[in-house]
Amino acid sequence: MTAPNRATLWGRVVADELAESGLEAVCLAPGSRSTPLTVAVAEHPDIDVYSHLDERSAAYFALGRARRTGEPTALVCTSGTAAANFHPAVMEADRARVPLLVLTADRPTELRDSGANQTVDQVKLYGDAVRWHAVLPEPEADERKVRSLRTTVARALSETTGVSPGPVHLNCPFRKPLEPVEVPGDVPESFAETAAGRGRDGPFVETVDGTRTLTDGEHRSLLAALENADRPLIVAGPADPTALAGLEPAAVTDLADRLGAPILADPLSGLRFGPHVDRVDVEAVRGDGTRSVYGGYDAYVDELPAPDAVLRFGASPTSKPLRHWLRDADARQFLVDPAGAWREATFTATDLLAAEPGAVVDGLLEALAAGDGERGSRDTSQRASADDWRSRFDAAERRHWGVCDEASSADALASMPFEGAILAAVVSNAPDSATVFVSNSMPIRDADRFGRPRSADLTVLANRGASGIDGITSTALGAGSATAEPLVLVTGDLALYHDSNGLLALDRCDVDATIVLLDNDGGGIFHKLPIEGFDPPFTEQFKTPHGLEFEALGDLYDLEFERVAPAAFADAYRRSLAADGTQLLAVEFDSAASHRRREALRERVLEGLDGRSEG
Amino acid sequence: MTAPNRATLWGRVVADELAESGLEAVCLAPGSRSTPLTVAVAEHPDIDVYSHLDERSAAYFALGRARRTGEPTALVCTSGTAAANFHPAVMEADRARVPLLVLTADRPTELRDSGANQTVDQVKLYGDAVRWHAVLPEPEADERKVRSLRTTVARALSETTGVSPGPVHLNCPFRKPLEPVEVPGDVPESFAETAAGRGRDGPFVETVDGTRTLTDGEHRSLLAALENADRPLIVAGPADPTALAGLEPAAVTDLADRLGAPILADPLSGLRFGPHVDRVDVEAVRGDGTRSVYGGYDAYVDELPAPDAVLRFGASPTSKPLRHWLRDADARQFLVDPAGAWREATFTATDLLAAEPGAVVDGLLEALAAGDGERGSRDTSQRASADDWRSRFDAAERRHWGVCDEASSADALASMPFEGAILAAVVSNAPDSATVFVSNSMPIRDADRFGRPRSADLTVLANRGASGIDGITSTALGAGSATAEPLVLVTGDLALYHDSNGLLALDRCDVDATIVLLDNDGGGIFHKLPIEGFDPPFTEQFKTPHGLEFEALGDLYDLEFERVAPAAFADAYRRSLAADGTQLLAVEFDSAASHRRREALRERVLEGLDGRSEG
Repeated sequence: MTAPNRATLWGRVVADELAESGLEAVCLAPGSRSTPLTVAVAEHPDIDVYSHLDERSAAYFALGRARRTGEPTALVCTSGTAAANFHPAVMEADRARVPLLVLTADRPTELRDSGANQTVDQVKLYGDAVRWHAVLPEPEADERKVRSLRTTVARALSETTGVSPGPVHLNCPFRKPLEPVEVPGDVPESFAETAAGRGRDGPFVETVDGTRTLTDGEHRSLLAALENADRPLIVAGPADPTALAGLEPAAVTDLADRLGAPILADPLSGLRFGPHVDRVDVEAVRGDGTRSVYGGYDAYVDELPAPDAVLRFGASPTSKPLRHWLRDADARQFLVDPAGAWREATFTATDLLAAEPGAVVDGLLEALAAGDGERGSRDTSQRASADDWRSRFDAAERRHWGVCDEASSADALASMPFEGAILAAVVSNAPDSATVFVSNSMPIRDADRFGRPRSADLTVLANRGASGIDGITSTALGAGSATAEPLVLVTGDLALYHDSNGLLALDRCDVDATIVLLDNDGGGIFHKLPIEGFDPPFTEQFKTPHGLEFEALGDLYDLEFERVAPAAFADAYRRSLAADGTQLLAVEFDSAASHRRREALRERVLEGLDGRSEG
Repeated sequence: MTAPNRATLWGRVVADELAESGLEAVCLAPGSRSTPLTVAVAEHPDIDVYSHLDERSAAYFALGRARRTGEPTALVCTSGTAAANFHPAVMEADRARVPLLVLTADRPTELRDSGANQTVDQVKLYGDAVRWHAVLPEPEADERKVRSLRTTVARALSETTGVSPGPVHLNCPFRKPLEPVEVPGDVPESFAETAAGRGRDGPFVETVDGTRTLTDGEHRSLLAALENADRPLIVAGPADPTALAGLEPAAVTDLADRLGAPILADPLSGLRFGPHVDRVDVEAVRGDGTRSVYGGYDAYVDELPAPDAVLRFGASPTSKPLRHWLRDADARQFLVDPAGAWREATFTATDLLAAEPGAVVDGLLEALAAGDGERGSRDTSQRASADDWRSRFDAAERRHWGVCDEASSADALASMPFEGAILAAVVSNAPDSATVFVSNSMPIRDADRFGRPRSADLTVLANRGASGIDGITSTALGAGSATAEPLVLVTGDLALYHDSNGLLALDRCDVDATIVLLDNDGGGIFHKLPIEGFDPPFTEQFKTPHGLEFEALGDLYDLEFERVAPAAFADAYRRSLAADGTQLLAVEFDSAASHRRREALRERVLEGLDGRSEG
């Protein structure tokens, strides 16, 4: 069907090329200038549309969806400040490598800087935070222009999932009429609109992305370095959706077992949770009933001997004790990063392996199988030393989770509540499978320390690119929109306030969640900061009491509000998971007491460790 | 007192130089990296601090304060996405020429792109939207560095109010310790901190801004063009805080009276309201009891003969009928703009006068007084024609306000409510003096059409730079924070939702307001758009029903919620103005009916005009 005018033609070509390129979801915020895009994606049968009223929340929702799926989500907004509201999420997508295609409608070029209403400079609006930026040609029924349009759109989508996935920005000027009204002659009946596919299924143009792999020789030399170490270690940091591309968690545990290397798995690594954690064959290999995946290290790792060779995947770990322990180790540290970025801010890593993590692990396993390594040549005492190395972790881990279990019992919580117990309960009682989104500031730190490794299929996510407390609710709901499994959000009161607008998506985008609110009236993380020693007079600018009565959110948005005592949390949580709709479970804490309890528990863990002073 | 460490030294120097340069207010959002700045401004006796939890709202609050005062307001935030949340308000400040000094804390340079937490690229974050961008030197007790710091800070503040006022961005890297802890040797006791003033009062360095003025000859030639016209016109568009620098409203009416030129005064021009509107000497000059300031033109101007010479102040007028009428006039159009920008998006203006409006008006009045113009040489018939020209406006104006009064009576509103009547009541019942902030989308259009000129000292403001519906509440409350006079905010339901976080400032920043909510459940402006002809299927992406029950805002924030019928609005409004605290008066409308009524009233105005067909 011939488009009634050139703007409609443009919108349709964009939507069609996106859909043919595999795009499944668009988040849009209403506006006038974006009408051709809005109408086209709304009428496209293969594109799901999520409509939002606040562009900041829309962008984080898209981010969450893309983060959960690893597939790009597109964003559409009108011209002006709407586009600037996308900026925080674009920044997070950049740092966290989340594929996001941002389509900003714009007014025609000649109006730029003319004083025209709602006209701002949208060219390169997001600076270097995007992988690619382009301005679409102005709509016209011209065959070369349409080919260029299709190529640009397909290329933009492909760039979002390139070597370093991330946001891409297309600025899209449109002139009136923006609606699908008939403009005689604007698009001639005879106009042969260039079609997608051209004889094959799929988009007009298609990018095939090669995989970065090391050579066999490089794999052998890496293996030798790891095998020759007395205390080899694997560290899995926060993973962007594609960082584990081709990486089989079971292959990593295989490798770890063969190397005698503990895996310190960040809660966001994709390796702390999953069937690989409790595999039967792990026991067969290890023979001691312990596991290769460790999750409690944040509480104890700085008391253990340093590693002498480290293989690192993902971004910099959430755990500060772990980062400092690695910094102070005199170890060869290999960073594996498919984008070839030195994401290591202590500047103590020695080698960057710019290759797909999956390919590196497979290469190492193949080298091991071929006997290319040097393990065979090492004597028994070295092997024993390696066993001792892991057993230190085993002992610390047992101690940590024992202390944690004890402190998390209903009785203990009734007298000594602490926020970490909520994170422990959230993780250990989450259904298999589930998506658990954790806010920045204290919740992610508590998830790191108290989120026990499980064989359940838990996808734990957070915004650890730029680590803001903005957009948390929307990111979580966006992640939830992409899956039928239960969604849990653990957030703080500041984060909940900051993105309270995001709660509108519960109803508008039909997402259900269990929202766990750790409410300490703005007190959270500042107990970890030295400014606390300056109270008064300065803490009032840091502690952020707001006195907000969040009950009212239940009247504004589509959720049931429930205030829950820490000791009663686990039951309320399970009830919510079994129920329909969205429950917001608010658990009040005194942040100072919670923080003291956290420190005391760590002391108790350390007291129980052998040879603490050797550390 | 010697600073305990270099970060503290830096914070103190920045705060001191800002205060000495005249800065009075800082809006800050809590965070860790910004601690040196936060502590310094909090302890400075001459700086008022406004603390916010959402950076987007904080930035709009600062914008509102700066817009109301014409003086720069500073903003402080921590590193990361916090800074991106400032972007929408920075964009508005750019387009609207509002002085804003943005101080973003940053992590040390070496951490950029290192994968360090909460570290993003903040250099040139706002692109070309800022007048100036600089990265502060890293703190160090070095005399040249301190001199450079003071110079940069004073210069930055001065740039915000330069020839084209607007936002300036200083990116401020800090390393730990961020708190005022003693670091021995970091700042030697002997360190002679360069002081402000240096023997005079004031900052370390001071900028004296010259005034752009035309020559006497240029004034004479401008006067001749206006005097030779048969239908001279003065158009006052939306004014940025400094656009009317040196402009006496009474001088403009003087000039208009002498030229026989009607003044079409945008509600945001600073000329529609004020004592000059009803001056006794106007009658003396005009002798006919009418005034030079016209406010109803949006309803009728396109039916009047076109002007043949136009003197324009301020930005492009809010009224689309006015813009189109000017576009279609075959007239010489003089834009007066101190920044020398061609803010005229129809591209029909002929002359740009890059000079202070006040200086231009004074220059014209002086030329008139000196008899430099050519009026004396014109014959009586021309003078009569000029009188007829103004009388057309007088008649139209009388007709418009008569129709408006009739339609706004309680009886009429009970049967045929329309949103414009609320704006009419807001303006006509506002105390003398008051600040009235009006949201974009329909409220500003209705304020334009139905806000009747008054001699009261009303400051009517809106965000007409980029014309977004974001940040409306915060901008209004920021404006209110700068004045003891009553604050009125007229907003729509989408805008209220978008910046609901901004309501926290009622309590945190101790601002009272009368908030008027025109609640049409997201239906507002789209009745003005052609997409309405495509219902179904597309309107659901444009009309934005959300079903939000705003009553709950009364439980969350420091305000009294009241639902008011249109006919009862004026009474409720007066009650709120007389009461303490903040009242949110929600008036429900059916947007389609309201829109039809608006059109019908315009028809009635036009029916009553003579010689409509001549237009």
